[in-house]
Amino acid sequence: MVIHRIFNFSAGPAVLPLPVLEEAQRDLIALPGVGMSVTEISHRSKTFEALLTRAIEDFRELSGLPANYKVMLLQGGASLQFSMVPMNLLTDGRPADYVDTGTWADKAIAEARKVGDVRVTGSTKADGYSRIPSAAEVSLTAGAAYVHITTNNTIEGTQWKTLPETGDIPLVADASSDILSGPLDFSRFGVIYAGAQKNLGPSGVTLVIVRDDLLARSTSTLPTMMSYKVLAENNSLYNTPNTFGIYLLGLTMKWLKSLGGVAGIAAINVRKAGMLYAEIDRTGFYRGTAQKESRSLMNVTFRLPSEDLEKRFDKEATAAGLDGLKGHRSVGGMRASIYNAFPTEGVSALVEFMKEFERKNG
Amino acid sequence: MVIHRIFNFSAGPAVLPLPVLEEAQRDLIALPGVGMSVTEISHRSKTFEALLTRAIEDFRELSGLPANYKVMLLQGGASLQFSMVPMNLLTDGRPADYVDTGTWADKAIAEARKVGDVRVTGSTKADGYSRIPSAAEVSLTAGAAYVHITTNNTIEGTQWKTLPETGDIPLVADASSDILSGPLDFSRFGVIYAGAQKNLGPSGVTLVIVRDDLLARSTSTLPTMMSYKVLAENNSLYNTPNTFGIYLLGLTMKWLKSLGGVAGIAAINVRKAGMLYAEIDRTGFYRGTAQKESRSLMNVTFRLPSEDLEKRFDKEATAAGLDGLKGHRSVGGMRASIYNAFPTEGVSALVEFMKEFERKNG
Repeated sequence: MVIHRIFNFSAGPAVLPLPVLEEAQRDLIALPGVGMSVTEISHRSKTFEALLTRAIEDFRELSGLPANYKVMLLQGGASLQFSMVPMNLLTDGRPADYVDTGTWADKAIAEARKVGDVRVTGSTKADGYSRIPSAAEVSLTAGAAYVHITTNNTIEGTQWKTLPETGDIPLVADASSDILSGPLDFSRFGVIYAGAQKNLGPSGVTLVIVRDDLLARSTSTLPTMMSYKVLAENNSLYNTPNTFGIYLLGLTMKWLKSLGGVAGIAAINVRKAGMLYAEIDRTGFYRGTAQKESRSLMNVTFRLPSEDLEKRFDKEATAAGLDGLKGHRSVGGMRASIYNAFPTEGVSALVEFMKEFERKNG
Repeated sequence: MVIHRIFNFSAGPAVLPLPVLEEAQRDLIALPGVGMSVTEISHRSKTFEALLTRAIEDFRELSGLPANYKVMLLQGGASLQFSMVPMNLLTDGRPADYVDTGTWADKAIAEARKVGDVRVTGSTKADGYSRIPSAAEVSLTAGAAYVHITTNNTIEGTQWKTLPETGDIPLVADASSDILSGPLDFSRFGVIYAGAQKNLGPSGVTLVIVRDDLLARSTSTLPTMMSYKVLAENNSLYNTPNTFGIYLLGLTMKWLKSLGGVAGIAAINVRKAGMLYAEIDRTGFYRGTAQKESRSLMNVTFRLPSEDLEKRFDKEATAAGLDGLKGHRSVGGMRASIYNAFPTEGVSALVEFMKEFERKNG
């Protein structure tokens, strides 16, 4: 039977590598040699512990994470981390600095304000979040508990190219939409978190990385399920995790290694985004919403000459098997999310579609 | 290719219905007519919203839940609910009553104590949690914010047969290990929560049911991801849920309906547990750990004459394709978890194995 798959530009949950889905499908009724589905095995079994360990070790290898960081695979998404970060790190009365680069940064700020003293140390809200602030625009508070950034802004299509210099102040990042998509110096960070459903695997798994020395900030009055210290000490197994999600994340790590790891995928990602931005810039019919120096390699956002044309573009693209191109409802326009697993053929197909659409409507 | 499946007595994650796994396997690369895997589709898509709505409606139909309750499919397991229940309901200085019937009840109490005034209103700890307290042993605090029970104690193999009369005080229950396994008058409860990985689906999904009037207790200072009010208002879609887990839960609801719903499965469960308890009581070689009037239909716990024999039993059972029979490490002995999806043939196989083991070692 031929299985028909379309090109899925969804911002997340997003496309997964076909080899990952094929392996999961083959073994879904019973893992080889185990006689049970991965969805059925105990999280305390040797089989699952081996899967979990392998997934985390592969992530460590791919990311080049230094040894003095713990890696956890939790639940609740980045949205729960918006609260867990301040509940664990903002515990001694010092303020935290947050850089406001978009909708998700804004949500992180709102949750942190429920916990402690939060200062917005740089914002591009006045520019419609069309860019990342320059180094000069981010003024850190001396003695801040941490500085929070959003490495890639999924809705606005912007991405940090140069990390802010934070000295001794731990840098904390929501890296949900660009983790493992390109080189990143993990040693610059105190905490990194990411919902898995864009670059790491399916929804329902959250990657959280914490530098060892910061675990001491988690107080014993925290709800146990919110304590980085307890969760790290229990190696993601304090309670029953999302076992199938972790399995798929592990398969995705294996796939990424087969492509040459982060260096391999980074070259592919630069090429994919380059193809789209070149088409956007070609005649002026399409207009990129992010300023050029801040353009995201993961979420390519653009407008057409009118909202009517945008509606027609979305409708005709969907009919042509190019799905999920409508921009976030809060900003409108179009958005092509082209995470690691999004195939280059799909980008080529979109570029061809854009040329043809302009020819007919330009 | 013949796929070899064994009998999985795991306490959770646990066995799933084979027809559920077969449908998930068939459609894992692309849902029919969608062209994307269920692991890849946006949680805001019409396809996913229809899946979610159907899963919740089927649960409502199966459970007979009255209309004045919200049903949510969240993340974090019962362990996160141990904190969310008091954070949402224990907000005005009144005490909460907790009945202590085992390890998990104990953990719920420990988390609630971090939030407010908690009174243990009944405990069978002195009896090694071998039974559920009688009505006379549960003395409620007048004006308590709620009363918390654990409907089935997975580790100790006990189950409530008659709910405590709580009058106007909302009854709150952790029903992780027996939800939808037999008749339950949901209108008696204020809140019911359950990790999905025993009777509802795979791990990584938590069912939370809240009576409408109690949503008013959630204050706006709560972390958004912990607020029943916000999560209910957003119909489980405040943030990205575990989409694949919800899909499998939906398929499990469909399977349960095909068996005649809760009435149908209840009869099967009574029969399965009856077969095992009859064998346990037959000669005295095996000894049930729960007192007879409190015996669980889901987790059948028993001892052998010596720990050496228990080790041999576990080893030989595993070799015979009867997996996961070792009791929880905190109590020892044996445990056969026979949730809804556990097949009657597997119970028959265990009974035969027990007879043969006694014949050789009795």
